[in-house]
Amino acid sequence: SDRYSLLILPGDGIGPEVMAEVVKVIDWFQANRGMAFDVTHDLVGGAAYDAHGVPLADATMARAQAVDAVLLGAVGGPKYDVLDFSVKPERGLLRLRKEMDLFANLRPAQCFDALADFSSLKREVVAGLDILIVRELTSGVYFGEPRGIHSDDNNPENEGGRVGINTQRYTSGEIRRVARAAFELARARGNKVCSMEKANVMESGILWREEVTWVHQNEYPDVELSHMYADNGAMQLVRAPRQFDVIVTDNLFGDILSDAAAMLTGSLGMLPSASLGAVMPNGRPKALYEPVHGSAPDIAGKALANPIACILSFAMALRYSFGEGAAADQLEAAVERVLADGVRTADLMGPEGGTPVSTSQMGDAIIAAL
Amino acid sequence: SDRYSLLILPGDGIGPEVMAEVVKVIDWFQANRGMAFDVTHDLVGGAAYDAHGVPLADATMARAQAVDAVLLGAVGGPKYDVLDFSVKPERGLLRLRKEMDLFANLRPAQCFDALADFSSLKREVVAGLDILIVRELTSGVYFGEPRGIHSDDNNPENEGGRVGINTQRYTSGEIRRVARAAFELARARGNKVCSMEKANVMESGILWREEVTWVHQNEYPDVELSHMYADNGAMQLVRAPRQFDVIVTDNLFGDILSDAAAMLTGSLGMLPSASLGAVMPNGRPKALYEPVHGSAPDIAGKALANPIACILSFAMALRYSFGEGAAADQLEAAVERVLADGVRTADLMGPEGGTPVSTSQMGDAIIAAL
Ligand SMILES: CC(C)[C@H](C(=O)O)[C@@H](O)C(=O)O
Ligand SMILES: CC(C)[C@H](C(=O)O)[C@@H](O)C(=O)O
Repeated sequence: SDRYSLLILPGDGIGPEVMAEVVKVIDWFQANRGMAFDVTHDLVGGAAYDAHGVPLADATMARAQAVDAVLLGAVGGPKYDVLDFSVKPERGLLRLRKEMDLFANLRPAQCFDALADFSSLKREVVAGLDILIVRELTSGVYFGEPRGIHSDDNNPENEGGRVGINTQRYTSGEIRRVARAAFELARARGNKVCSMEKANVMESGILWREEVTWVHQNEYPDVELSHMYADNGAMQLVRAPRQFDVIVTDNLFGDILSDAAAMLTGSLGMLPSASLGAVMPNGRPKALYEPVHGSAPDIAGKALANPIACILSFAMALRYSFGEGAAADQLEAAVERVLADGVRTADLMGPEGGTPVSTSQMGDAIIAAL
Repeated sequence: SDRYSLLILPGDGIGPEVMAEVVKVIDWFQANRGMAFDVTHDLVGGAAYDAHGVPLADATMARAQAVDAVLLGAVGGPKYDVLDFSVKPERGLLRLRKEMDLFANLRPAQCFDALADFSSLKREVVAGLDILIVRELTSGVYFGEPRGIHSDDNNPENEGGRVGINTQRYTSGEIRRVARAAFELARARGNKVCSMEKANVMESGILWREEVTWVHQNEYPDVELSHMYADNGAMQLVRAPRQFDVIVTDNLFGDILSDAAAMLTGSLGMLPSASLGAVMPNGRPKALYEPVHGSAPDIAGKALANPIACILSFAMALRYSFGEGAAADQLEAAVERVLADGVRTADLMGPEGGTPVSTSQMGDAIIAAL
């Protein structure tokens, strides 16, 4: 039978702690479901900088290109704030996204029944929320040239004498491929896509709207498509998030809107993500999976971290990389059961109580529920 | 005594309806508080396009430059969606902002006690909310060059063959002046500023952070300053908005974050804004005041619009253009009283009921409360 190759990059902060629980889950599927994983571990972010002086070594990059899927924990921490832009922990993550050409970032924002009261929003506004933000991840202002900080000394009106530049740049092809990903995903869900940009002020937004519309008309006329300005999108996410099914948007808007959407659920420690690229000859897409939460340096090393977001990221790997949809369903159901049973890491502990558990106890509870 | 000159640009959709109520308020202050306003009316947006073929005529622009303050209703509507980018209603507004050099856009997000239940957020999260977003309004990706949509035919990898470009560009001087505005405003409030950017991925964000820090250290060390990535800012606004006092951010982040913040209050029909530029020889800043809400074409002409946002925008004009702080306080208090009395336009009508009123009845109620 098939073997699945995985590169595990735990990263910084709570990354290694939550990833240790994912390893338990991987082992369970190997022992009990006849799956075979080839697992390699390596460094990314601050951990890689400490070892190699760069946030992602070339050898690690090569390994990431060679495996079926990369699992990443989190990167960054105050220790690395002083580093130069070019070697900051984030650059390791951005290099992986860019060089693996992971253009479609899937960020589900799902409100778990047992946790609906954690939201700062009213229960009736978020209960049952299940939206999917598809964010373009390899282009736009994150990567466009020219970029940098320059001196502007010949401009006497510029007090301070410097200028900072970034370039928002999208090709029609870049827009079409992420639009296709969104339409495909919508077909397997609520069959609705809302595309967000600022076509009223940015030409790149006009191109975005036109190309999404082109893909819709020519290839996915059966899916319902709407367009919204990104500022209104932010409002609507706060006002009535359940009006959305799939949202497709660019790299920078996606960064902000997906974080807002994530926070609607009130439980950031629960949310996974997948970043997908082109389908390889073996039929599997280039892929990286990571929790939405960050490295949370304030709680690192205290056994307080919630491993669920990272475990659900592995569930996404089962579904999108390995076609193991039933196994993914089983893992997600195990998580729901554990939550329904009141098992709670510190971040999930509300006024109604529950059984407080550590990071590894949460992992064990999920294994038991499997 | 002083005369105050005003240019009124009602614009499109509900703009003229809400502005008619502001005119009543202006008349009241003339009749009862000995103020003298020289009021001119003119066209902007779709209304200007219909009359002149451009969304802002040169003569109107000249008038705007000459008055103490511009009051704007709203621009845009489906009728104008087909227009070319260069003459869309929004371009009229953007031209005013740019040519008057209105670099500091003040967007208060305030939760009115009588309306706290309108928020999609829990009452305990938003009750008493009072934050001020200071958005840079004349630079950044809204105005940076190069920009446009070009053909990219020589790139065989670009399916579609086009590329869309916008440029995020900030000078240190542009950042410093809006930072100063934010620090000044903070001193008159909670004395706290949070600056938001994406310095982890954008060099323009690094420059932003450095220049805000420079202004803080050299000129406002007494104000508390913090920095936050804009994606985290969006999360924190949803999670716990009352942690903020003044937020300062760039044009594009400000557009999105201020709309999210506005929606936290649940009553968009209540929120005013001020856009301020350099102080003129007469001691008054270049200024434009407008409600945060749009032209709401769906309810235009039905006497359903809520005029309060536009009336409170005039209160901001009293405060920031004319130094009439006591009059502004009085007008704001009149609005609060009317709300406390249960007077409600359609958008404010909740399950607990109230006295339903039309646009002009709301204006009359506020006059009566004055
Ligand atoms: C860490 C940072 C570079 C990254 C981003 O801005 O894309 C993060 O915010 C995310 O959304 O994955
Ligand atoms: C109408 C539009 C051009 C404008 C903007 O994007 O600035 C609006 O959204 C605003 O925030 O005032």
